[in-house]
Amino acid sequence: MKKVSVVCHSGFGHTTNQAKAIVHGIDNIENVTGNLIGIDQEGEIAETDWLALDESDAIIFGSPTYMGMASWQFKKFADATSKRWATQTWKNKVAAGFTNSASMNGDKHSTLHYFMALAMQHSMLWVGTGLMPSYTKSAWRYDINFLGSFGGLIQSWIILGQIMGSDSLLIRVFDYQRV
Amino acid sequence: MKKVSVVCHSGFGHTTNQAKAIVHGIDNIENVTGNLIGIDQEGEIAETDWLALDESDAIIFGSPTYMGMASWQFKKFADATSKRWATQTWKNKVAAGFTNSASMNGDKHSTLHYFMALAMQHSMLWVGTGLMPSYTKSAWRYDINFLGSFGGLIQSWIILGQIMGSDSLLIRVFDYQRV
Amino acid sequence: MKKVSVVCHSGFGHTTNQAKAIVHGIDNIENVTGNLIGIDQEGEIAETDWLALDESDAIIFGSPTYMGMASWQFKKFADATSKRWATQTWKNKVAAGFTNSASMNGDKHSTLHYFMALAMQHSMLWVGTGLMPSYTKSAWRYDINFLGSFGGLIQSWIILGQIMGSDSLLIRVFDYQRV
Amino acid sequence: MKKVSVVCHSGFGHTTNQAKAIVHGIDNIENVTGNLIGIDQEGEIAETDWLALDESDAIIFGSPTYMGMASWQFKKFADATSKRWATQTWKNKVAAGFTNSASMNGDKHSTLHYFMALAMQHSMLWVGTGLMPSYTKSAWRYDINFLGSFGGLIQSWIILGQIMGSDSLLIRVFDYQRV
Repeated sequence: MKKVSVVCHSGFGHTTNQAKAIVHGIDNIENVTGNLIGIDQEGEIAETDWLALDESDAIIFGSPTYMGMASWQFKKFADATSKRWATQTWKNKVAAGFTNSASMNGDKHSTLHYFMALAMQHSMLWVGTGLMPSYTKSAWRYDINFLGSFGGLIQSWIILGQIMGSDSLLIRVFDYQRV
Repeated sequence: MKKVSVVCHSGFGHTTNQAKAIVHGIDNIENVTGNLIGIDQEGEIAETDWLALDESDAIIFGSPTYMGMASWQFKKFADATSKRWATQTWKNKVAAGFTNSASMNGDKHSTLHYFMALAMQHSMLWVGTGLMPSYTKSAWRYDINFLGSFGGLIQSWIILGQIMGSDSLLIRVFDYQRV
Repeated sequence: MKKVSVVCHSGFGHTTNQAKAIVHGIDNIENVTGNLIGIDQEGEIAETDWLALDESDAIIFGSPTYMGMASWQFKKFADATSKRWATQTWKNKVAAGFTNSASMNGDKHSTLHYFMALAMQHSMLWVGTGLMPSYTKSAWRYDINFLGSFGGLIQSWIILGQIMGSDSLLIRVFDYQRV
Repeated sequence: MKKVSVVCHSGFGHTTNQAKAIVHGIDNIENVTGNLIGIDQEGEIAETDWLALDESDAIIFGSPTYMGMASWQFKKFADATSKRWATQTWKNKVAAGFTNSASMNGDKHSTLHYFMALAMQHSMLWVGTGLMPSYTKSAWRYDINFLGSFGGLIQSWIILGQIMGSDSLLIRVFDYQRV
């Protein structure tokens, strides 16, 4: 049984909703189990959560994009991973990420590229969405990957539909795990 | 009379359309004149264009986003600016940028951040859109800055409306010029 | 008299040292006064500091680069600027930035590009170092801009010399202010 | 037998030297064979090279960093991959990258993050150096990963030593391939 942890901070619930959809997708994959770890409003997770991350085969980072970057609570978590960095504890784990913000763009790309930089410092392996964008003239808000993101899952609050593409992301994660 | 040059490559005409709208906006500002310089399909501009750039108070970079970055023709132009870089000829000029791609995101942010890096190498001064994004639930395709970009103007081909926000960009450029 | 505020978080003192050198450079410029605002270990600044920022002509952001990005304390400050963002209070102010980390690179570029994204959200104007890099075979650790950064000032902890290039940065800031 | 292709443009030979060292490292790994594909000064590769890329298990991108980004010749190659993008031919292949420039930083990070964006558009899987940086006070130019890069291999022309870390990069690539 492979383990995937989704670790995220959520300010108003949007990110938790994304995370739940992703964990739901994980649990639908055979021989894989998902685990949702919430970073609290002080940027903390429990010691048992750290151990769960250490034992995971893949870690998926999630945060809202506030002022052009992941929230400070997520960054506090990221800074606290420096112990794992020093020992390269997460080396060779698979990493992926997701974010959301109010507007279509709103610098969500900055957050995703930061997640990549963080994963690279941990010598993790980065996987993106593996989804083609929706880009015809008939494209609309409820299309899969309407926002056209490759590096990670993104969602805009003004799109009122469901989380999109999460299953696809997870399937790619596990293709590489060659479960 | 202040001079602003818009230098861009256009593959299929979208970027030229953006550029024309921006030059139109420039010409509507008192005591400012706009100049459109097209990079050809071999990535070249004329020697007189180089001189026009040298004499400009502000330079606005434009390119489609292809495969996650400005087109190779734009990059060929950028590489050819290395002579100006070596002498810091463009130091203290104002810089801004715009791009477009088929999908909503499509890594347009990568292109904008590259334009910023290029401007920084030339010791130019970067100005963004100065526009608040459209981010309410009633937001739609024809809103000003519907795509929610801060670093530069962006447009998606699937949005069939007019170029948005260009006047605002230009007004900000000239606020700083204190014309 | 023009006012420049340097607002930074420092974990172990390196960033404060950079900041002090920059403020010293500011105070040496005629008709300009510098103000150092320290973000505390909880990511907070005083209400009077917020007012000082609002009244500044230029704001220089500083933070160490931890785990590939500005520290969480800096990000907490950045998130708290969202009130100013909503009213675009800092629109048209000049912005610049500096960072440091233990190794030569260590993703300091990520931190600088984040500072740029933050400044763009606030509709500020970004200035870089305006310094040519040291890149000959005889280049060594104590050269000005040995690290070769354009977007902002960077320093590596393994370089034991003085802060470099700060005066140049500040002079460029004020060129644009046209004091 | 697993195949790894290194595809790069080299302006003055530095990048070819990096590439050769990497291919040498590849050939030293059991059951793996390396293939060096040079992008010519017009940004072209042969049709047989395209087929070799299609048949590779991993593709390593290489380019000098000129004016803050990969060379235009590399970008011309990248733009020409749009056919493979449209069919997602390279989906699930492993990707990595390397670059070099004259100065210590010189925006090499921009080039690496562009390589990541390109790989994500192709739904590839990104691996970094997997190397801890050299960051003590006794660090010097000939240390492994003296430049402190995580996302990909980087080299400064002013460091006159050998390519560093290439074997480590490749071993990580193949750890993930689980050959």
